Amino acid sequence: MSHLFLQALNGDTVPRPPVWIMRQAGRYLPDFMKLKAKYDFFTRCQTPELATEITVMPIDQIGTDAAILFSDILVVPQAMGLAFEMKPGQGPYLANPVRIAADVEAVRVPDAEEALSYVMDAIVMTKQTLNDRVPLIGFAGSPWTIFCYAVQGQGSRNFDIAKSFAFTEPEAAHALLQKITDTTIAYLKAKVKHGVDAVQLFDSWGGVLSPVDWELFSGQYMRQIVDALRDDIPTIVFAKGCWHSLDAMGTWGASALGLDWTIRPEEARRRAGHDVTLQGNFDPVRLMSPPDQIQSMVKEMIDAFGKDRYVVNLGHGILPNIPVPHVKAFVEAVKSYTPSS
Amino acid sequence: MSHLFLQALNGDTVPRPPVWIMRQAGRYLPDFMKLKAKYDFFTRCQTPELATEITVMPIDQIGTDAAILFSDILVVPQAMGLAFEMKPGQGPYLANPVRIAADVEAVRVPDAEEALSYVMDAIVMTKQTLNDRVPLIGFAGSPWTIFCYAVQGQGSRNFDIAKSFAFTEPEAAHALLQKITDTTIAYLKAKVKHGVDAVQLFDSWGGVLSPVDWELFSGQYMRQIVDALRDDIPTIVFAKGCWHSLDAMGTWGASALGLDWTIRPEEARRRAGHDVTLQGNFDPVRLMSPPDQIQSMVKEMIDAFGKDRYVVNLGHGILPNIPVPHVKAFVEAVKSYTPSS
Repeated sequence: MSHLFLQALNGDTVPRPPVWIMRQAGRYLPDFMKLKAKYDFFTRCQTPELATEITVMPIDQIGTDAAILFSDILVVPQAMGLAFEMKPGQGPYLANPVRIAADVEAVRVPDAEEALSYVMDAIVMTKQTLNDRVPLIGFAGSPWTIFCYAVQGQGSRNFDIAKSFAFTEPEAAHALLQKITDTTIAYLKAKVKHGVDAVQLFDSWGGVLSPVDWELFSGQYMRQIVDALRDDIPTIVFAKGCWHSLDAMGTWGASALGLDWTIRPEEARRRAGHDVTLQGNFDPVRLMSPPDQIQSMVKEMIDAFGKDRYVVNLGHGILPNIPVPHVKAFVEAVKSYTPSS
Repeated sequence: MSHLFLQALNGDTVPRPPVWIMRQAGRYLPDFMKLKAKYDFFTRCQTPELATEITVMPIDQIGTDAAILFSDILVVPQAMGLAFEMKPGQGPYLANPVRIAADVEAVRVPDAEEALSYVMDAIVMTKQTLNDRVPLIGFAGSPWTIFCYAVQGQGSRNFDIAKSFAFTEPEAAHALLQKITDTTIAYLKAKVKHGVDAVQLFDSWGGVLSPVDWELFSGQYMRQIVDALRDDIPTIVFAKGCWHSLDAMGTWGASALGLDWTIRPEEARRRAGHDVTLQGNFDPVRLMSPPDQIQSMVKEMIDAFGKDRYVVNLGHGILPNIPVPHVKAFVEAVKSYTPSS
């Protein structure tokens, strides 16, 4: 447990907080864009050599304290028989979304380790390439977030079709959520077996639900996953827009809770309690600010969260148009952090 | 002040809370769709007879306790020289958005009463037609929300271009926000003069900002508007996604604060304090639930907010696909409300 990132997840006292960036292996890096021009999205995910190269790229070029396996949350529903495509410039698309109860019955719970063996191969290869320089994070979408895409069939601002299905066909909705949960647990356990050092759940669309509906359709399923994993490995739960349930999430036994940028550090800590690490929450668009401003804002953010039980990150994925020197300024500000006296 | 809606805004004790619905004059009503098929969006806004007919329609057909003038937040930037169009199926579009400081200088502060005389005519005609059955609400976008459209040039999930402009050209951004603020104050004062009974500010995109940036780029400008209006008329501030600043908004002297559906009633009251009416916050997609469920959820919601200092509404605009009987069930549940004993 000598890595700063794992120490912070464990609640150890650290000289400075670790830093990584959601979507750090992505479109703001020119070398990534070269690979993107040559290989389509799922080819990059499914070819271990490419996934490894992309995963390690920000460690070499930006210097973050953890790597996150290049992959996508939609590989799980793909393995369940939902044939997602990635439409360029538009995002995920499913020609035959789940719309009636009978569609749910057709969704299968696969042997995740076998069905997603290319992910396992990528983990093994990435771990070898990283050679213990930094820990490797594996991830999955929350069951609710996968459900949103499976029912809506594509991205959406409010996922009204997915929500309507949940509200009018609750029995079928819960059956689908449980299938996704079971698959995700098996998938993450296989990832652990192949070498990831921590796992993060992305509840990207939990924020479209009211607090009561979130507990019903998202929270209880993520809790099952944390319960199944937490004795094996540190777990991080990032429920974007779900500030209202940080109190509940703080009791799940997760190692860390991710935060978006709409909550003040002091309030996040007050809600989540003191037995969990917090991760976040710099506004991704604030990386457009001049580098000297970025550095002073990062210092203020760490002062507000406190250096311990804290992982520096953005409040959501990095945007494609962020200049690389700004990203380096962000990471450098963390690495040179000293507490205000 | 005998109208229930105005009583609730005033903090009077009432037998039941009033109810109205954001976008109540809209696409879920078959008669509205007939007018939509005949006249384009801005024709409907700019023709007082049409605006009146649409505004009064839900009073006759649904029975809400307040009318809201059919119009659009983009009529204000239009009057400032920003030539927004409404692209069918896509939303607002501005061919020449504000992108550099010099663009801000070209934006004019018009004589709002004159430039938007068609709105004033629609108010007079609507008031005559309503014949004091229910009060009439006038509205405007928040300066930040208008800024978002003016800079982004169209709808967006995160308004990254607008935010980037604010963060990299803060001086020009504040100059534009002040121009919008000045125009909005004059516009709302003219509306008051022509007969509206209350005004609502829609900060539809305040939620894309961090709490610190929200105060800087949105809050302080809305506060100017509330300050300028509150001695003349009841004001309602609806800042979607801005739960984090309800405490601050509660001190502005607004009559009411609107709430989206992601905050629990008890928490909203705790944050906002007891000197302001709360308005909201039923999840719009929850109107897809069976009518008997809608009715029990409405009762629970009123019990949680309390019948006084409260206006029943959705947490955002009504969706086009909601069946009319479900909307009626929502309104009926409020009208037949009796407190749990």
